[in-house]
Amino acid sequence: MQTPVSDQVTTGPIEGSTKTYVATESGLSVPMRRIALSNGDHFDVYDTSGPYTDPDVEINVHNGLYPLRRGWSSEHRTQLAWARDGVITREMEFVAVREGVSAEFVRSEVAAGRAVIPVNRNHPEAEPMIIGKNFLVKVNANLGNSAVTSSVEEEVEKMVWATRWGADTVMDLSTGKRIHETREWILRNSPVPIGTVPIYQALEKVDGEPEKLSWELYRDTVIEQCEQGVDYMTVHAGVLLRYVPLTARRVTGIVSRGGSIMAAWCLAHHRESFLYTHFSELCEILRSYDVTFSLGDGLRPGSVADANDRAQFAELETLGELTHIAREHGVQVMIEGPGHVPMHKIKENVELEERLCGEAPFYTLGPLTTDIAPAYDHITSAIGAAEIGRHGTAMLCYVTPKEHLGLPNRDDVKTGVITYKIAAHAADLAKGHPRAQERDDELSKARFEFRWIDQFNLSLDPDTARAYHDETLPAEPAKTAHFCSMCGPKFCSMRITQDVRRYAEEHGLSTVDAIEAGMQAKSEEFAERGNQVYLPVVE
Amino acid sequence: MQTPVSDQVTTGPIEGSTKTYVATESGLSVPMRRIALSNGDHFDVYDTSGPYTDPDVEINVHNGLYPLRRGWSSEHRTQLAWARDGVITREMEFVAVREGVSAEFVRSEVAAGRAVIPVNRNHPEAEPMIIGKNFLVKVNANLGNSAVTSSVEEEVEKMVWATRWGADTVMDLSTGKRIHETREWILRNSPVPIGTVPIYQALEKVDGEPEKLSWELYRDTVIEQCEQGVDYMTVHAGVLLRYVPLTARRVTGIVSRGGSIMAAWCLAHHRESFLYTHFSELCEILRSYDVTFSLGDGLRPGSVADANDRAQFAELETLGELTHIAREHGVQVMIEGPGHVPMHKIKENVELEERLCGEAPFYTLGPLTTDIAPAYDHITSAIGAAEIGRHGTAMLCYVTPKEHLGLPNRDDVKTGVITYKIAAHAADLAKGHPRAQERDDELSKARFEFRWIDQFNLSLDPDTARAYHDETLPAEPAKTAHFCSMCGPKFCSMRITQDVRRYAEEHGLSTVDAIEAGMQAKSEEFAERGNQVYLPVVE
Repeated sequence: MQTPVSDQVTTGPIEGSTKTYVATESGLSVPMRRIALSNGDHFDVYDTSGPYTDPDVEINVHNGLYPLRRGWSSEHRTQLAWARDGVITREMEFVAVREGVSAEFVRSEVAAGRAVIPVNRNHPEAEPMIIGKNFLVKVNANLGNSAVTSSVEEEVEKMVWATRWGADTVMDLSTGKRIHETREWILRNSPVPIGTVPIYQALEKVDGEPEKLSWELYRDTVIEQCEQGVDYMTVHAGVLLRYVPLTARRVTGIVSRGGSIMAAWCLAHHRESFLYTHFSELCEILRSYDVTFSLGDGLRPGSVADANDRAQFAELETLGELTHIAREHGVQVMIEGPGHVPMHKIKENVELEERLCGEAPFYTLGPLTTDIAPAYDHITSAIGAAEIGRHGTAMLCYVTPKEHLGLPNRDDVKTGVITYKIAAHAADLAKGHPRAQERDDELSKARFEFRWIDQFNLSLDPDTARAYHDETLPAEPAKTAHFCSMCGPKFCSMRITQDVRRYAEEHGLSTVDAIEAGMQAKSEEFAERGNQVYLPVVE
Repeated sequence: MQTPVSDQVTTGPIEGSTKTYVATESGLSVPMRRIALSNGDHFDVYDTSGPYTDPDVEINVHNGLYPLRRGWSSEHRTQLAWARDGVITREMEFVAVREGVSAEFVRSEVAAGRAVIPVNRNHPEAEPMIIGKNFLVKVNANLGNSAVTSSVEEEVEKMVWATRWGADTVMDLSTGKRIHETREWILRNSPVPIGTVPIYQALEKVDGEPEKLSWELYRDTVIEQCEQGVDYMTVHAGVLLRYVPLTARRVTGIVSRGGSIMAAWCLAHHRESFLYTHFSELCEILRSYDVTFSLGDGLRPGSVADANDRAQFAELETLGELTHIAREHGVQVMIEGPGHVPMHKIKENVELEERLCGEAPFYTLGPLTTDIAPAYDHITSAIGAAEIGRHGTAMLCYVTPKEHLGLPNRDDVKTGVITYKIAAHAADLAKGHPRAQERDDELSKARFEFRWIDQFNLSLDPDTARAYHDETLPAEPAKTAHFCSMCGPKFCSMRITQDVRRYAEEHGLSTVDAIEAGMQAKSEEFAERGNQVYLPVVE
């Protein structure tokens, strides 16, 4: 399906949906995506796409989005500080509506440090969202030009495209000369929190030579990004000099870019990381903008062979130490996790992170559960992401089919996001999130009742579901036919079940035993009907 | 990459591999796929592709494959009967080499009923393979024309294509007039065991009217298929009359085709299923050909809402009862499982199946862990397949992206098979299969040492991995470049780790502490090198 484009970004609602807003007591309006159903009913879902899917909003990337949160608070305090003081902020109220929980519950989770609301006071365009184990599992999409690619508009479109399909946050990992300008465009046009890795820009300033990095240069870079409005920052402050040798016998050594930069600096100077030695000063800077720490796992495993090793867990211990320091400063914190981990070693990562880091939200990259499928690492990692998500990981960083091989294109970004929405939702179901199963049931009912268009529109990707169906049965009538394209009209069922059910309802039978008592009559009715039966979909 | 085609089927080795054969003491030759490595070494992997990937074998689908197993045994006994008598058959010996275990271990697992070797004596073309929790997790691919499609050659090619990418068995679910002929072609050309659902053909014989089915007609159909050489058969003998009402209040009722046929028959006649009442006779027929039962779950859930409900588990209890009857008759048995199950309810399925069915091999369809992603159900189900596999499921029936929407094409079949090889391998890693991690480590080493072509060839899909890499860096030299296409020459590392490692090795440091002692010297050496550092792949 074609979508209109304004200033090179995708706008207009997702097929079958409209934008709606829920008004709160204090007058906030919280966006939701409303899926219309053919039976006249509708189903509302969490909406990450921002104003781009609202036809009533004029989009101009040169002007940026409306600064929703401007003036929500004049004081320079963090969500953590407010929460500790028992104050429910508008951000908390906004988030509560999105999640379907009470604002007080949101406040208490933030106060405990079990959840973070990453909203830099200088990024008023962002719609507040929450990351924590007791909320919907979130998905992050990494974007970032390599030096050679793409206009700034293209970078903005990548962000819009990722959030359209469900990315809850976006990390801008751009490198190269126009890094500041690119980030500015993304921030002014982003409805979701933006994360960065400041060490990348700092390295640009010293021509890519890590040993030339200094605390002062790094600090100034962080302040520059805080001023712009970056909502959370990856800081690899846990890569200590003494941990570097622990990677010597690994199969794949250090695979984190930031981790290897800091390891290189430590080796070059044979001194402790300036990120570690100046961590308290860093906390003071982030606190004054309410920027959230994403403490990076610079020593994460790059292969299943290296999973859960001494280097990885030594760093995690240090991240725990830093978490408590950051909290003393009133700064929100989440913790980054692996990487590559076989299924049986995944749960241990969550348990250890929660114990060492005081239940700070865990934010993992996959993990990939096997190394043998390059070109399919969105799948090898979705298996691990769903598993680590169900055990309590709060946000999943997506992996695209191009991982390890090349730069993701537009299709790869969509595939990565949809795949991770699946993993996040599978985890939500396993955790028993109150709202999670409603959507599964709505779609399953539509499937069972042959409401094809409802089935498409309730799915994560209506365009592709419809396209696959049309490959076999293009005709429009097929969308309302009471059979499945796999088996054809003669060979379709669930009808048999509908008969059983109808019978039960007609006779108001309240127990299955009672239904059973009616089986004889049932079988006669069935014989009268010419014993017609249809065959179902799956075998 | 183009592959030559003979008689419309794909032949020739997979990119980067050659066919090799391992000779056993008793003179059997067991096929393996040998992956050549650029360092002169090689890595052998389990090979399901049969003679089609051996350039020295002339393929003619009209003649069929060489009958490998003809004359291996003159007696009409089952692998189970031999195993119980302490006899190691050639099939067991063949399987032992493929799995890298002792033949005696194979025998003991078959004798215990924990594993099956599905080999009809009338399918001598098949290469023996084993299905059991203590062996590599297997993958089945469902094929089957809808009445309208495809020549018989096309059906054979689908089977060849699926086994090329790793399908361990294939189920022929064909319907329509040419069902017998199609199956004959597939059997004579298949190097893997073929499974069927005889009730489909039986229904064709009564013009699709279930109530016209009879034991006699079904029995004759089963004998016809046994004679042809079908290796295992799905029998929905657990769908009892009294269970049908248990589906009345389900969200998606009965979704198994065979299950609804038998439910319809039971309702029409208000009698118990003839599959259940004549089960012992059925056992005698299967025993005389050594055809393996795949006891079907006709009441499996068709949505996460219906998972683990009374209908599903009531049927499973009956399957347990039938398992013990079949074993008394010396017939091999596996048990089919769901379907649609949320992650937190998956483990219970395996535990219950093992307890009720005496650890008979479990063979599951997915399960899908959420219903909200039609067009991506290979992924929603790969998550469940990996999870159920790690808990002991022996074979995973693949799901393609077209599930619920349409008929899979050639690309869908490949995507489904590769996706399920990932799930099976992730489960093998989690179960600690001795051979599983070797391949991950080989590929990770290749990745770390920038042996790009080795990385492609060691992957599950060398063609796609190479194609994705070439999108960014097409030039041939890039295949040997010591950097990654994501970051470019200046921005690539692991180099730092290689330095750390090289240092450790040069100094013969045996402990990490000792390495640490050498850090000062290390930092000087690093400074001399101009402090050059590269940035790694993933962030």
